Amino acid sequence: MSDDERTARAALSRLFEPQDAAALALVQAAGAQDALRIASGRLAAGVHLEQEITAILAACGAGSSWPGLGAALQRWATRLPDLAPERDLATMERLGGRLIIPSDELWPPQLADLGLQEPLCLWWRGVEQELPAVARAIALVGSRDSTSYGASVTADLAYSLAQRGFTIVSGGAYGIDAHAHRAALAGGAGGMPTIAVMAGGVDRFYPSGNEDMLRAVADHGAVLAEVPPGSAPTRYRFLQRNRLIAALASVTVVVEARWRSGALNTAHHAESLGRAVGAVPGSVHSANSAGCHRLLREGGAVCVTDAGEIAELASPSGEALAAEEAGRAEVQDGLTLEDLILLDALPLRTTSSVEKLAAVAGLSPDAVRAGLGRLGLLGLAEAQRGAWKRSPKAD
Amino acid sequence: MSDDERTARAALSRLFEPQDAAALALVQAAGAQDALRIASGRLAAGVHLEQEITAILAACGAGSSWPGLGAALQRWATRLPDLAPERDLATMERLGGRLIIPSDELWPPQLADLGLQEPLCLWWRGVEQELPAVARAIALVGSRDSTSYGASVTADLAYSLAQRGFTIVSGGAYGIDAHAHRAALAGGAGGMPTIAVMAGGVDRFYPSGNEDMLRAVADHGAVLAEVPPGSAPTRYRFLQRNRLIAALASVTVVVEARWRSGALNTAHHAESLGRAVGAVPGSVHSANSAGCHRLLREGGAVCVTDAGEIAELASPSGEALAAEEAGRAEVQDGLTLEDLILLDALPLRTTSSVEKLAAVAGLSPDAVRAGLGRLGLLGLAEAQRGAWKRSPKAD
Repeated sequence: MSDDERTARAALSRLFEPQDAAALALVQAAGAQDALRIASGRLAAGVHLEQEITAILAACGAGSSWPGLGAALQRWATRLPDLAPERDLATMERLGGRLIIPSDELWPPQLADLGLQEPLCLWWRGVEQELPAVARAIALVGSRDSTSYGASVTADLAYSLAQRGFTIVSGGAYGIDAHAHRAALAGGAGGMPTIAVMAGGVDRFYPSGNEDMLRAVADHGAVLAEVPPGSAPTRYRFLQRNRLIAALASVTVVVEARWRSGALNTAHHAESLGRAVGAVPGSVHSANSAGCHRLLREGGAVCVTDAGEIAELASPSGEALAAEEAGRAEVQDGLTLEDLILLDALPLRTTSSVEKLAAVAGLSPDAVRAGLGRLGLLGLAEAQRGAWKRSPKAD
Repeated sequence: MSDDERTARAALSRLFEPQDAAALALVQAAGAQDALRIASGRLAAGVHLEQEITAILAACGAGSSWPGLGAALQRWATRLPDLAPERDLATMERLGGRLIIPSDELWPPQLADLGLQEPLCLWWRGVEQELPAVARAIALVGSRDSTSYGASVTADLAYSLAQRGFTIVSGGAYGIDAHAHRAALAGGAGGMPTIAVMAGGVDRFYPSGNEDMLRAVADHGAVLAEVPPGSAPTRYRFLQRNRLIAALASVTVVVEARWRSGALNTAHHAESLGRAVGAVPGSVHSANSAGCHRLLREGGAVCVTDAGEIAELASPSGEALAAEEAGRAEVQDGLTLEDLILLDALPLRTTSSVEKLAAVAGLSPDAVRAGLGRLGLLGLAEAQRGAWKRSPKAD
């Protein structure tokens, strides 16, 4: 792919807000380089805008008019004076970063699941390494004003998932995000322990209180954004950034969130992509768990309480759970109704005769004898001088 | 209905363990009085057991043999010497209680949902009042070793549901059960505030530490069991008792439960009856919430965090939720994408011109003017000397 394509996408990422519908349609129809030329008002020699657009529409089989494109061109025109893609690319190089585009090897293939919502490019600061396949990336997200409960649960989960080789994706913010990145860095066993997806430009580490942490993320993992250097992290861009977090990860887990929280927006993006969503439960008295409980109530999320349950969501066939549940089974589980009744009738401190057991349990003497044999084999009943008692093991 | 029917059912409740399959089939086919006669070995004059049974099978359209009945007759025979239904009925009368059977007015109609598992009778101590219809009864159940969190949540829920006129059904045990009964007694506004369903006989209040509480339940609500006075609360009977709790209530809520807990058994009974099941979330560090989280994970239970959410499960059409959610909506929710971008671009402390806003937001000046008009109407933007700022209300 030519440098022109890279430069064009760098420019478009400044000209267009993420998810500008007209912009996406134009790039889809004309490609990035022609989209930039048209959005910039630089038409082919001797051609009018209408002719050019009509030709594009014909080429991509669309209808004969493109409602909204006129207004969009006006809208984009206000930012044309700011375009300086070579300067942006040079800035990234100075920072030790780069721009990656869909044709690059490093481009995360899971972003293709976004379809038309796939970003035009990613501004990237981090190790030169492919992003993990979607099955190995897990998003841990939540409130900025996390509680000590949220902090400790996030740290446990992130550390333990990173130890298992998962990459922790989050948003680099205060609270749950920061706890997730820090614990992933501590737990990471090589590879790409953590990725911070930013709402503003990656030329500065925002918020400033997380600067050291984000620098460490860039040194050992990656910090990335779809908006160019210098971009402010606006509320709108936070919401769009959330779709990238959801798309990069196979599972999005909300650890703590208020009833209304950006983390729920990330969870909804994950759902609409068909990705699994987990929610960590907490006290019903904690406003910071209300958003998690809302996700559980409203049906989309799975209740997750430890790293094993999250790993299971990432690879639903996992054997981990089955092994755990087998360990929890108890010997009484296999008993028939009659043997359960007999077990109840057996005294624990004294012994009882077969006849007395028959009366207490409401079973025939033959049935009692047969049942005592089975319970004895299981170590639940013991014989002493022809009478029977319950084994201590039975409780 | 004759006294003979009442006396027969009183006797059968001592002869048969709850849910003895052969017993249920015999009562279903022959009726309670003939079932007692046959189980007691008292056959019609000049008739053999085989002939009698063949006649019953023919009358109810069953096949020509009844496997298991021979063994069952042997089993029942061991308890025949203990039968004294008149004494049991007299005991109940002395205690101020009575026996109710399915043909009585007081019989809770919701128990019919149990089908063949419907109890033969209920030994009842309590106020002479019909049990509430299923839509007004809610079961709150959980661990005996409740935490302070479980205790406070249970008390809040039971008090608040009783205040709303719901009857709280539970098992009379230590822990969650006791907190539920006590708070329901405190919150109840007349009617039947609470019902304790016991695994053993209602002639003594078990466990003894709950004696005063259970006496208060009997004074203001009801204490009941399907087993006769003097019956021990065996493990088997606890499991069968749980089906009655689940059947009496329209919703079963597990407030706290360990990974393996009798409360989960009650929840599974409720599920199999098609009743709603709620689980209260808690800390992932609490073993006493592990059973609740298991119910949430394994799909059957709805996450509930307050009395309103439980009431909603009891009457799913409830308007309570809708009103609450409307109250939580924010004015920004209705904004278009362009207006959200514009709102982000508006400074909060200084003001900004339309042209500058157009460049920052990436919108045309006309779009900015129209958007400012809309944001102004919503009270989200303010004009000062021809320039604009964000209203404090917007944050």
